Amino acid sequence: MQIAIVLYDRFTALDAVGPYETLGRLPDADTVFVAERTGPVRSDTGRLALTADKSLAEVPRPDVVVVPGGPGQGAQMGNEVLLDWLRTADGTSAWTTSVCTGSLLLASAGLLEGRRATSHWLALDGLKEFGAEPTGERVVFDGKYVTAAGVSSGIDMGLTLLGRIAGDEHAQAVQLLTEYDPQPPYDAGSPEKAPAHLVDRFRNGSHVVLS
Amino acid sequence: MQIAIVLYDRFTALDAVGPYETLGRLPDADTVFVAERTGPVRSDTGRLALTADKSLAEVPRPDVVVVPGGPGQGAQMGNEVLLDWLRTADGTSAWTTSVCTGSLLLASAGLLEGRRATSHWLALDGLKEFGAEPTGERVVFDGKYVTAAGVSSGIDMGLTLLGRIAGDEHAQAVQLLTEYDPQPPYDAGSPEKAPAHLVDRFRNGSHVVLS
Repeated sequence: MQIAIVLYDRFTALDAVGPYETLGRLPDADTVFVAERTGPVRSDTGRLALTADKSLAEVPRPDVVVVPGGPGQGAQMGNEVLLDWLRTADGTSAWTTSVCTGSLLLASAGLLEGRRATSHWLALDGLKEFGAEPTGERVVFDGKYVTAAGVSSGIDMGLTLLGRIAGDEHAQAVQLLTEYDPQPPYDAGSPEKAPAHLVDRFRNGSHVVLS
Repeated sequence: MQIAIVLYDRFTALDAVGPYETLGRLPDADTVFVAERTGPVRSDTGRLALTADKSLAEVPRPDVVVVPGGPGQGAQMGNEVLLDWLRTADGTSAWTTSVCTGSLLLASAGLLEGRRATSHWLALDGLKEFGAEPTGERVVFDGKYVTAAGVSSGIDMGLTLLGRIAGDEHAQAVQLLTEYDPQPPYDAGSPEKAPAHLVDRFRNGSHVVLS
């Protein structure tokens, strides 16, 4: 099963690596990192580059499409090379997925119209412009479309989809081997749980260090 | 504050990217991925390469050292170039840290003797050979030495250390922006919680797809 994980300038690294490390542990996974051009692609901090081993054109029919988000997503919203590839790949994919603001790229390609979907909590409203129905859930399935909330939620999405494809036991084995028994030191991971002044600060647009 | 994240052939990607995405959000972070030689370094699946932007020799005095684990860790246990660098960097570091079997590299460099430390649950006993005291906790602080359990625990370690360095509020902001509100689809992330037959299978060495 071929899994194509899309990279573009200023993506958020964990958005891509979460699904890679979970879903990518499918028994017969052929995971490939793709971008418009092959070679290193810089993440949002500028401090990390992941290699795109194939160009989009070289991977036209993946079984699973994974689109990460990040501050660079905005600049891709009008990139017809990427949007055309998403539409074409979606034409034959078994699963079309996103993490964080990656869902806005799927939506911009016209793939989420009339569908329930999620995104980073700061970007949820943006889905409406493309006819999608935003939900605050962490992982949203609507047919073959699977969208995850912000950044770290790609791990939960990857494990959930892994279970659907390969069965619960395989997904549990991957959870055990990645020791995914989260123990965050704070309980501030969603706008409902975080201190209100932090939520307000980010809603007002200041100090946004991630998108 | 300079954060050096060490790469080597067949490391586990999430081990490195978890701390990068959390601890690397320090307000003044100068995060640099380092390896014996600069250029792309392949992770354990062979499907993903992260770029080492600097050689070990170019980054002799980082403030924070982060050593990931992975199936390639075994081959590094006798790599004196890496072990010498770890000892030298540790000589002036504020924090020396690891994720997963990265702690065995710190231990092999002689840095964990007499200290409490953790590692991937399958590798905990290995710490004893180097005079460290293994604990089953997810994140272990002993002085400036911070070790995390398997793979995904680097996210918890990164956030915890971020809070120590930059304060709780900054760490909570990063948790909120990375939407780290984990909702795993199963409760199988530790040997105490996973189905016993899976734990036994991995303890017996079969089907280990990660270390």
